[in-house]
Amino acid sequence: MPNNIHVSAIVSPNAVLGANVEVGPFTVIHDGVKIGDDSVVGSHCELGCPSRLAGSDTLVFGSNTLIRSHSVFYVGSKFGDGLVTGHRVTVREDTVGGEGLQIGTLCDIQGHCEFGEYVKMQSNVFIGKKSKIGDYVWIFPYVVLTNDPHPPSEVLIGCVVEDYAAIATKSVVLPGVRIGKGALVGAMTLVKEDVPQDTICVGVPGSNVGPTDRIRHSVTKEKCYPWRRHFRRGYPNEIVEEWEKEFPS
Amino acid sequence: MPNNIHVSAIVSPNAVLGANVEVGPFTVIHDGVKIGDDSVVGSHCELGCPSRLAGSDTLVFGSNTLIRSHSVFYVGSKFGDGLVTGHRVTVREDTVGGEGLQIGTLCDIQGHCEFGEYVKMQSNVFIGKKSKIGDYVWIFPYVVLTNDPHPPSEVLIGCVVEDYAAIATKSVVLPGVRIGKGALVGAMTLVKEDVPQDTICVGVPGSNVGPTDRIRHSVTKEKCYPWRRHFRRGYPNEIVEEWEKEFPS
Amino acid sequence: MPNNIHVSAIVSPNAVLGANVEVGPFTVIHDGVKIGDDSVVGSHCELGCPSRLAGSDTLVFGSNTLIRSHSVFYVGSKFGDGLVTGHRVTVREDTVGGEGLQIGTLCDIQGHCEFGEYVKMQSNVFIGKKSKIGDYVWIFPYVVLTNDPHPPSEVLIGCVVEDYAAIATKSVVLPGVRIGKGALVGAMTLVKEDVPQDTICVGVPGSNVGPTDRIRHSVTKEKCYPWRRHFRRGYPNEIVEEWEKEFPS
Repeated sequence: MPNNIHVSAIVSPNAVLGANVEVGPFTVIHDGVKIGDDSVVGSHCELGCPSRLAGSDTLVFGSNTLIRSHSVFYVGSKFGDGLVTGHRVTVREDTVGGEGLQIGTLCDIQGHCEFGEYVKMQSNVFIGKKSKIGDYVWIFPYVVLTNDPHPPSEVLIGCVVEDYAAIATKSVVLPGVRIGKGALVGAMTLVKEDVPQDTICVGVPGSNVGPTDRIRHSVTKEKCYPWRRHFRRGYPNEIVEEWEKEFPS
Repeated sequence: MPNNIHVSAIVSPNAVLGANVEVGPFTVIHDGVKIGDDSVVGSHCELGCPSRLAGSDTLVFGSNTLIRSHSVFYVGSKFGDGLVTGHRVTVREDTVGGEGLQIGTLCDIQGHCEFGEYVKMQSNVFIGKKSKIGDYVWIFPYVVLTNDPHPPSEVLIGCVVEDYAAIATKSVVLPGVRIGKGALVGAMTLVKEDVPQDTICVGVPGSNVGPTDRIRHSVTKEKCYPWRRHFRRGYPNEIVEEWEKEFPS
Repeated sequence: MPNNIHVSAIVSPNAVLGANVEVGPFTVIHDGVKIGDDSVVGSHCELGCPSRLAGSDTLVFGSNTLIRSHSVFYVGSKFGDGLVTGHRVTVREDTVGGEGLQIGTLCDIQGHCEFGEYVKMQSNVFIGKKSKIGDYVWIFPYVVLTNDPHPPSEVLIGCVVEDYAAIATKSVVLPGVRIGKGALVGAMTLVKEDVPQDTICVGVPGSNVGPTDRIRHSVTKEKCYPWRRHFRRGYPNEIVEEWEKEFPS
């Protein structure tokens, strides 16, 4: 299918757009941007901002990408298929994102960080440089991942968030902390120490209050974590099938 | 008076603009948008974003509406007269707002929620889906109203904020919590339980520290709450007269 | 050198641009804006929004200014040379900023406030009206400086942040509080009382946990504060030389 570039959009002749790509009004796409097939870029975006800090001059999106309005991406980053963003996201240089990444409205990704597959960030999440996020992670609104142990300094130690972990709204993760696989950080928690796999951390400062499997689902009254026991919307069929085998209902 | 649409704005012929409506540069107004008389839409906005999630194909604003620059509204919502927004607000589908609603800069309204009359939100407030806000409520910067008791899940239980309540900066209200009429939530509070009418909740986790009427005004030394005792700027005359009768000076 | 105004930008003939100024696509520059030499204004900005609340009809930027995309500045403010902003900053009326001011992505400066020289704010900082910030101050992501002691009210008492102080991520400073020279506020702290010079305040509510000089640098193991002992990137040579004399290595 032919592309559908709004007449007011400014698309560099050195950008490479796949088949069936839609670009909204007043959007600017610079040199070195590559967008896969069947993608949509909303209005008022700027993609491929040049930067001397970037490791490359390219910015690569897979197929089935949806970038909502007023978003800004710098060069140097690369994303798998199915990236979905909210409005007004900022993604700086050298970010690597796996398939199915979701970046919510107003998220601020500082660059030089990695996201695994099907990571979902809701609104207004701040990811400091050098953060490393695994697969199937959830990060809820206004969470901040930091990296400087004694600000301001030249020392940057990113956080690590392992697969299936969930960090609830307004929490802050201090530099270098590791959130274990399947762990749950409660709302408004200040995470100062590593959180072991499948445990719950809550409070200011955060403390370990036991295993996640003691939490019961408010409707079914069954064990609620690991959350893939009951929440499977928006994941590919083959992943859902795996989870169904792991936790048969 | 004639309308004043900037030459660079893109306004659908299927949008209906009242008399004396101003639309700023680089703003996009889609099908189904209706704006009442004497209104202003700033630059770089997008109004009426189409959505399959919306309950209708229309987006309706009353008269005397002021939408500041870079704001985004989806279809499905309806607002009374006198809506005022800051810059870069996001308002998703099926939001219902009463007269005199104020939505501060960077607010993120997730949709499927209700606001009464003269609700005032300052900057960067996040309202989760299914929230219900009464009349004359104040919500201060970076407050988050949540809805998922065990994230991620399919269970969404919105918060309820009753008339005249005030929620101070950076507080988080957990799913399904009810903030009572005239209650005060202090800054950086994690509200886990219902807050009774005219009481104060502070802390992480929040606890009840007594009635609001023990707080004295820093200048007049008189009782400070209910705040309508002393704060009446920006409300219509007939409301102010009512409050003057209730609390004669 | 000639100026480089993108053909789609809308620049008032009553704006005064110095030599070698670049203005990006879809940016609007109103009457009364003055921009010094060798400056860059990104795409989708709006500079010089008119306002009846402003003390003047002008908005003045020094030379070597960099304003990133989607930013909004009202009239009435004045900045020294070398202002750098992130994306989507909002700066309201009557803000005064010294040389080398840095305003991070999504910052929301409410106006009627003052910043000294080389103040650095990272992303998403909220500065309430009447705040007064000294020189060489650092304010980290999502910090909020408040001003209303019993919201909502007509009483606005701004915070004061003295030279060299650092306020870590997610902290809230309550109205009228003074953060002393060189003080350190830890992450997610609710600062309710004045913080003495060169001391550390942490917790909700914040409490004094001793002098800053007890903190050791994670790599060098030397005293870490005052931070100008070891962090000097981005400051002018003459300032760095002063700091080298003060803390010889």
